[in-house]
Order: sequence, then structure tokens, then C-alpha cells
Amino acid sequence: MFLAKVYIYYKTGVLDPQSSAIKTTIADCGFDKVSDIETGKFYNVKIDVADKASAEKVATELCEKILSNPVIEDYKFEIMEA
Amino acid sequence: MFLAKVYIYYKTGVLDPQSSAIKTTIADCGFDKVSDIETGKFYNVKIDVADKASAEKVATELCEKILSNPVIEDYKFEIMEA
Repeated sequence: MFLAKVYIYYKTGVLDPQSSAIKTTIADCGFDKVSDIETGKFYNVKIDVADKASAEKVATELCEKILSNPVIEDYKFEIMEA
Repeated sequence: MFLAKVYIYYKTGVLDPQSSAIKTTIADCGFDKVSDIETGKFYNVKIDVADKASAEKVATELCEKILSNPVIEDYKFEIMEA
């Protein structure tokens, strides 16, 4: 059993409205030490295969087909034994 | 300058509809090796302070006041020099 920690984030140059909203709120609330904020999603995926290479294959397919929108998002993941 | 990597996730026992939807989709698409999936959000926050303790203080306040809903969500973060 392996655990894939998957991170999905906007590609550089893609407008991130959630980040803009948070930045405005943070400034309004007086957090003057925060200079930038990026947002993204993460998924902890349990993959029931025998070896790490197979887990990587499943995670890559999952990211490309289901979890990310390849037009505007990039992904990365790390695989660990669980 | 410090970078806080903040992770927000549902507390145990809180219904995660996005995760349920993804699980159904994954099963329909034939990913029979995926046994579980948890979802969450992450934020990369740049904090412009002199030392790590101050960065931790800002990150904690930010998580509790803005980024998480303490009724249903937990947070964790790691601070690194940027």
C-alpha cells in the first residue's frame, strides 16, 4: 500500500481569483507582513499496489485524467509507503 | 523572508462531498487500485519577517482567522526560509 500526496496548482500566468480575494482580505485585516499567497489543492490518495513504480504510474494517470485540468493546472506528487 | 506551506483539511468525521464525488468518478473510470482519497487545500504564503518564530506567529494567526474554518477544518503548516 502506498500513499500519494498530490498537489494541484495553477500554471504561472493563470489568474487565481481565490488568491486575489484572500490577498485583499488579508490586507484589510492588517496582515502587513504577508507579501504573497498562492493557492492550490491537495489529495492524499491511497494506492493498493505492490511496488512504487506501479504507484507512480497510477498517480500520474489519475492526475492527468481526473484530478487536474491540464489547460490551466500543473501537478506534482510524492509517493511514500503507507 | 519566510515561506509558510499551509495545509487545510477536514476534521475527522466531517463529510467531504468532493472526496465522495472523486471516489465515485475514479471507480467509474476503472482505477480499481485506488482505495481511498482525502482532499484539502494548500496555501504558499510569503511572510516578510526577520525570524522564524515571528513567521510562525503570523502563520498561526492567518490560519485561525482567515484560511481555515475551525468548526470543520484543521490546519498544519511548515515554515522554511525563502
